Amino acid sequence: MTLEQLQQEYEEVKARGLALNMARGKPGADQLALSAGILDALENPVAEDGTDCCNYGVLDGIPEAKRLMAFMLDDKPENVFMGGNASLTLMYDTIARFHSFGVLGSTPWNKLPNVKWLCPVPGYDRHFAITEAFGYEMIPISMNDSGPNMDEVEQLVAHDESVKGIWCVPKYSNPSGASYSDDVVRRLASMPVAAADFRIMWDNAYCVHHLYNEVENQDQVLDIKAACEEAGNPDRYIKFASTSKVTLPGAGISAFAASPANMEEARARIGIQAIGHDKLNQLRHVRFLRDGEGIAEHMKKHAAILRPKFELVLKKFEEGLADVDNCRWTAPRGGYFVSLDVPAGCAKRVVALCKEAGVVLTDAGATWPYGNEPKDSNIRIAPTLPPLEELEQALDVLVLCIKLAAAE
Amino acid sequence: MTLEQLQQEYEEVKARGLALNMARGKPGADQLALSAGILDALENPVAEDGTDCCNYGVLDGIPEAKRLMAFMLDDKPENVFMGGNASLTLMYDTIARFHSFGVLGSTPWNKLPNVKWLCPVPGYDRHFAITEAFGYEMIPISMNDSGPNMDEVEQLVAHDESVKGIWCVPKYSNPSGASYSDDVVRRLASMPVAAADFRIMWDNAYCVHHLYNEVENQDQVLDIKAACEEAGNPDRYIKFASTSKVTLPGAGISAFAASPANMEEARARIGIQAIGHDKLNQLRHVRFLRDGEGIAEHMKKHAAILRPKFELVLKKFEEGLADVDNCRWTAPRGGYFVSLDVPAGCAKRVVALCKEAGVVLTDAGATWPYGNEPKDSNIRIAPTLPPLEELEQALDVLVLCIKLAAAE
Repeated sequence: MTLEQLQQEYEEVKARGLALNMARGKPGADQLALSAGILDALENPVAEDGTDCCNYGVLDGIPEAKRLMAFMLDDKPENVFMGGNASLTLMYDTIARFHSFGVLGSTPWNKLPNVKWLCPVPGYDRHFAITEAFGYEMIPISMNDSGPNMDEVEQLVAHDESVKGIWCVPKYSNPSGASYSDDVVRRLASMPVAAADFRIMWDNAYCVHHLYNEVENQDQVLDIKAACEEAGNPDRYIKFASTSKVTLPGAGISAFAASPANMEEARARIGIQAIGHDKLNQLRHVRFLRDGEGIAEHMKKHAAILRPKFELVLKKFEEGLADVDNCRWTAPRGGYFVSLDVPAGCAKRVVALCKEAGVVLTDAGATWPYGNEPKDSNIRIAPTLPPLEELEQALDVLVLCIKLAAAE
Repeated sequence: MTLEQLQQEYEEVKARGLALNMARGKPGADQLALSAGILDALENPVAEDGTDCCNYGVLDGIPEAKRLMAFMLDDKPENVFMGGNASLTLMYDTIARFHSFGVLGSTPWNKLPNVKWLCPVPGYDRHFAITEAFGYEMIPISMNDSGPNMDEVEQLVAHDESVKGIWCVPKYSNPSGASYSDDVVRRLASMPVAAADFRIMWDNAYCVHHLYNEVENQDQVLDIKAACEEAGNPDRYIKFASTSKVTLPGAGISAFAASPANMEEARARIGIQAIGHDKLNQLRHVRFLRDGEGIAEHMKKHAAILRPKFELVLKKFEEGLADVDNCRWTAPRGGYFVSLDVPAGCAKRVVALCKEAGVVLTDAGATWPYGNEPKDSNIRIAPTLPPLEELEQALDVLVLCIKLAAAE
């Protein structure tokens, strides 16, 4: 098609007055309905150890909830701490504690002239917003199909004591969908690090979020705890997970797991901030999901809804972008996103064109620290929220806008 | 009774092997049962503006929840921000933000060589733990029947820029039960303060927690917002409240209210930490409590349970301590505590004797910053958790232990 033809088609699309949203990784209404049972009355709001979940107390969570989240965190219940309705808050609070109080006796990061943080890109904008808020200098690390480029990482951490940590989404990474290889996990765990208070923020957001039910079509990631222990760096990681995309995004439960030393420090400090998170919601989750097997069964229902959406994204890209030079996209086997690279210098234009035509995408650049991708080519595709028919419309508009931007 | 008689009686009590707990201001099981209805299924988890409360979003809370909490906060819904299950966490997070980021452009408190904080005493140990954790120098301010001694406060804040704030429980104060007079509220609002970023932490924890239903037997406190605006210091306060002692302590909802400038800053910073707190629990609360009138009706049921307990405390003290010199106690008309002064140097001993006899009280000294009351005379009485019969036993033990300690 010529530029003129593309422009004419675009004007026709605009005239349809669409209002479609693919900006955030929100589950669709049919996914939320899967967890309707969790709203049922808690006839007996008493935990297995006799705790009345209505009253105050139990800072780190009821035993059965810690057991449930231990499955998602690939850890033992005694290493688990239950949070509120968002692991994002647990991560922010973790950094905030390190910032104000230091890490296992280290100098509080707010007392240092400069703190640097490693950010695999493309990555999760809300992660980057946290380290930006605390004024850390964020260093982009390129992502491969098997995780962050470890040569870059190892070089940066080896001699610079001001590099204090790295954001990681190890499985079905946001937005590329890539999962870390065993080699990457082992290198993260064992690499020589100048800062004793260096921490891996291990956000296992999509740990059970497979698109396919057959084990051979599911990504598996080595446990960072085991790798760190083996390498003699047992305190290097903090793991996070939540049920936001298992049950209800607005009313799930979250948790982190950490080594005994990290946990002891965290528990003491959180004990100043909180008396204990919502135990009734912990109990609702245990009664609804039961155990690891229950979670896996439940996630198959999500997969049945999401699989056609992800496959539609790939089909539309394969059909529509075959003739457009310099377009690349990922084909994840799980998670919530597809990462799309359009020709350099076109991402902002594509997102703007889509918006004008009624399709809201994640802002271009959002997958980079400071919202600033030098190449201006990456767009995060979040196909979960729209129903399949709307997603199809939105993808058609997106493909058209990419062609138009490339032709311009 | 002689010392020997007292000692003998004490040995007999110990032999009974009691296990009673009056340490914390926990509601009793019968109070929790009042809110059993809140556990019922949310058949339609949709807010009045159409928001699906199951999904992500709505950082500051659904409109009907803000309206409900505006009643407790004596403010307008647009000035309200909804938190998680604890106002304690909102308070900690507020101080943590000031510490790391400053207040409306002021120097972050972590960059200052010294931060001082005013602590009316006796006061709430969890407040003091927060300002202690951030390393602030806590200065005790004596409490009168009408609130903190304002001569002390005014003198401390007038010329010292390092004094950054004050903890206040304005109504039915923890632990004395005293409520601030209009004069105290106006002086707090209008006093000249050296630090532009001085903040009153207005913890209205017991705002609707009357023991008596007749208005003339209820304390009323002037609104700090109105007083601050009138005095030309519109940004001096942050108000906090929760339903922890209205519905369920472990699964209530919390909120703060602030001036537009303070709110704008808070909202922007909290937007990095959270996507939005549990909206389903907000909705449950609105459907269960309905509105201000619904809250007031519900609190009458709590009062019916608590009134006999508080009256029993006073009766036992009047009967048992009439002959013991230098004992004083408060007679609150609401809240969760009675403040008891035993002869100087005896508080720790009384708490230890009680514990040995199976009655757990709040630690002596807990009502002072750093857990250190120089006079060693104040004990916080928390009569809400034990059923009435157990409370009577516990009070008899307490009175005996006071007599014994005084005689020793």
